[in-house]
Amino acid sequence: MKKRKIAVLGSTGSIGTQALDVVRAFPDLLEITVLTASENADLLIIQALEFRPKAVVIVNKQYFGRVFEVLHKAGIAVLAGEQALKEVVEYEEIDVVLNAIVGAAGLRPTVSAIKKGKDIALANKETLVVAGKLMMDLVEKHQVKMLPVDSEHSAIFQCLYGEQDNTIEKILLTASGGPFRGKDRQFLKGINKEQALKHPNWVMGAKITIDSATLMNKGLEVIEARWLFDVDVDQIEVVVHPQSIVHSLVQFTDGSIKAQLGLHDMKLPIQNALTYPYRQTNKFERFDFLNFPTLSFEKADMDIFRNLRIAYECLSEGGDRSCVLNAANEVAVDAFLHDKISFFGMSDLIEATLCQLNKVKMPSLEDLLAIDLEARNVARDLIKDI
Amino acid sequence: MKKRKIAVLGSTGSIGTQALDVVRAFPDLLEITVLTASENADLLIIQALEFRPKAVVIVNKQYFGRVFEVLHKAGIAVLAGEQALKEVVEYEEIDVVLNAIVGAAGLRPTVSAIKKGKDIALANKETLVVAGKLMMDLVEKHQVKMLPVDSEHSAIFQCLYGEQDNTIEKILLTASGGPFRGKDRQFLKGINKEQALKHPNWVMGAKITIDSATLMNKGLEVIEARWLFDVDVDQIEVVVHPQSIVHSLVQFTDGSIKAQLGLHDMKLPIQNALTYPYRQTNKFERFDFLNFPTLSFEKADMDIFRNLRIAYECLSEGGDRSCVLNAANEVAVDAFLHDKISFFGMSDLIEATLCQLNKVKMPSLEDLLAIDLEARNVARDLIKDI
Repeated sequence: MKKRKIAVLGSTGSIGTQALDVVRAFPDLLEITVLTASENADLLIIQALEFRPKAVVIVNKQYFGRVFEVLHKAGIAVLAGEQALKEVVEYEEIDVVLNAIVGAAGLRPTVSAIKKGKDIALANKETLVVAGKLMMDLVEKHQVKMLPVDSEHSAIFQCLYGEQDNTIEKILLTASGGPFRGKDRQFLKGINKEQALKHPNWVMGAKITIDSATLMNKGLEVIEARWLFDVDVDQIEVVVHPQSIVHSLVQFTDGSIKAQLGLHDMKLPIQNALTYPYRQTNKFERFDFLNFPTLSFEKADMDIFRNLRIAYECLSEGGDRSCVLNAANEVAVDAFLHDKISFFGMSDLIEATLCQLNKVKMPSLEDLLAIDLEARNVARDLIKDI
Repeated sequence: MKKRKIAVLGSTGSIGTQALDVVRAFPDLLEITVLTASENADLLIIQALEFRPKAVVIVNKQYFGRVFEVLHKAGIAVLAGEQALKEVVEYEEIDVVLNAIVGAAGLRPTVSAIKKGKDIALANKETLVVAGKLMMDLVEKHQVKMLPVDSEHSAIFQCLYGEQDNTIEKILLTASGGPFRGKDRQFLKGINKEQALKHPNWVMGAKITIDSATLMNKGLEVIEARWLFDVDVDQIEVVVHPQSIVHSLVQFTDGSIKAQLGLHDMKLPIQNALTYPYRQTNKFERFDFLNFPTLSFEKADMDIFRNLRIAYECLSEGGDRSCVLNAANEVAVDAFLHDKISFFGMSDLIEATLCQLNKVKMPSLEDLLAIDLEARNVARDLIKDI
């Protein structure tokens, strides 16, 4: 394949640093043009000195001076603030924008990049959860590729290679079940953030680890899958698979099922997105059945893990519901991590927020960004009542 | 898809009758042009009266009169003898020849069909086991499709959709392990044909059921996979998977693994071969993880199931070794089914036959057919010494 120039948005986070591991593994194929970080100035500086991008963005302006001081001398442009993200993704030479920003802040740079004809490697869930229809319409209009980075969506994407003429009957989205799989209501009432932060399989950031414990992460992934693969909500089924080896499955209308498997290593789906459609030989550790002699599968319990049911309901209702869901969930997880609400309090808060805000049927992107802010405010106000 | 005209060779056997179920399910897409049977004249007549082919072949000439009497009146041409198989597969209008003949008799019709530009839906293992290199060279030369019907090879074939530019690192061929999985030498010494004929998952003919019990079936499939997918022998690994749900897997050079899954229903891979590359909606039963909550995987024991090791060795050695293996195995299974040799005696007989015959390095198709006959004679003579 021809060498690709990459912008990594959110390069100091979990996905970002692993993306740089992938770039390191393929120096002849992948090249960093832009790195951006929210506030981890020190790591951003180290990364920039190694990868020598054209520019970096430090979103939190208070760190601009520190970053500028070191990188300016190295001939690297240094920008600051959210607005700068839009500017750097538009650079002519960029082929792929890997969006690994956490939260709704990831939306605007995705839109800018798509409009400039860049392919998107998408790790920012909010892009599709908040504005799935708008984004996929843009992708269609500008004829770019939306390449999933989540292991589940990457699995589905890979299962669909060469199946353009065939129809999906069902997507089976696997879920590890998180640290509380099989636990009952009584147990979950009393759990704290330390317990929820221990994920059995994946090492990830705090927000997504809590979302895994509540199954909200899977709910958000159901919403993403609906938009990425253009299926109806009732064509997506969540299957709990504690070993996290089968990353997801696709059933076609002839009854045949395809699955993608591998170790829990985010470098694999990241590499897939950055080098698609070419599989490049790597030396990452290989899966071996001898280490995983048993794979098990069970139904997701949506009575206990209510967040998953709420996510399905929001996707069914449409309009701005997934946007409100996502905003309320971010506030809820933050409140839980600050010991302000309980494990079940998170679902209560999300439902209360959804009730409080009237549904908007056909929101624009600007509407959604405003609704996102409003929902956060409403949710924050409601915390004390939960 | 455009309607396809099909010749079913071996229409009264297990695969043949299921192929007709598939044709019944898609009357607008699939049409029977030729049916052939070895000697089940009654069923052939019933099938011909239902599907109204242009011609039928009854291979055993002693049944010709009976078949002719009924079908001639119905305006269906009736032919007899092996030579007639070659003639009917060459009919201008045929698009796909489904070869479900048992044994080396399947080779010549495959060659005739390929030379006439017909796509082959291959259920006859011997075609590739005996003459893999020659067949794939012919497929290449005449630009036809070789569509696998075995569930394992169909799985691999499906995993490779859209992966033309990518390289296979490893094929993981799954095996149920047969009725004697996990049994020790002492137990297997004393087993009889009734025990060996009880396959845990698949209902199949007697020969292939015994081959499943000895893992020779898997050995033959390893050889087939080598030719169908152009990989080296050490790139094919057998994984025992007792539930027979994951039909096989492909690992690519980026470490990503794709698998195809489904119920044990041969109609699925048959449909896949006959309608490729279009998946057609059917009403066959669907797989559900709730009925298979656990999938397990283990190493194949090639010390106990020596046939599998012998097959690997024959494939490594090349030349005519797989042809001799196949012929000796057919004699061995027949001898076992007639209580002439023991379970382990089958491996002994195959090894003795391989020893007896000097290796031929670059056999032609005619050489191979002669070697096949010779190996059978040698094996038959050796039975008394086992």
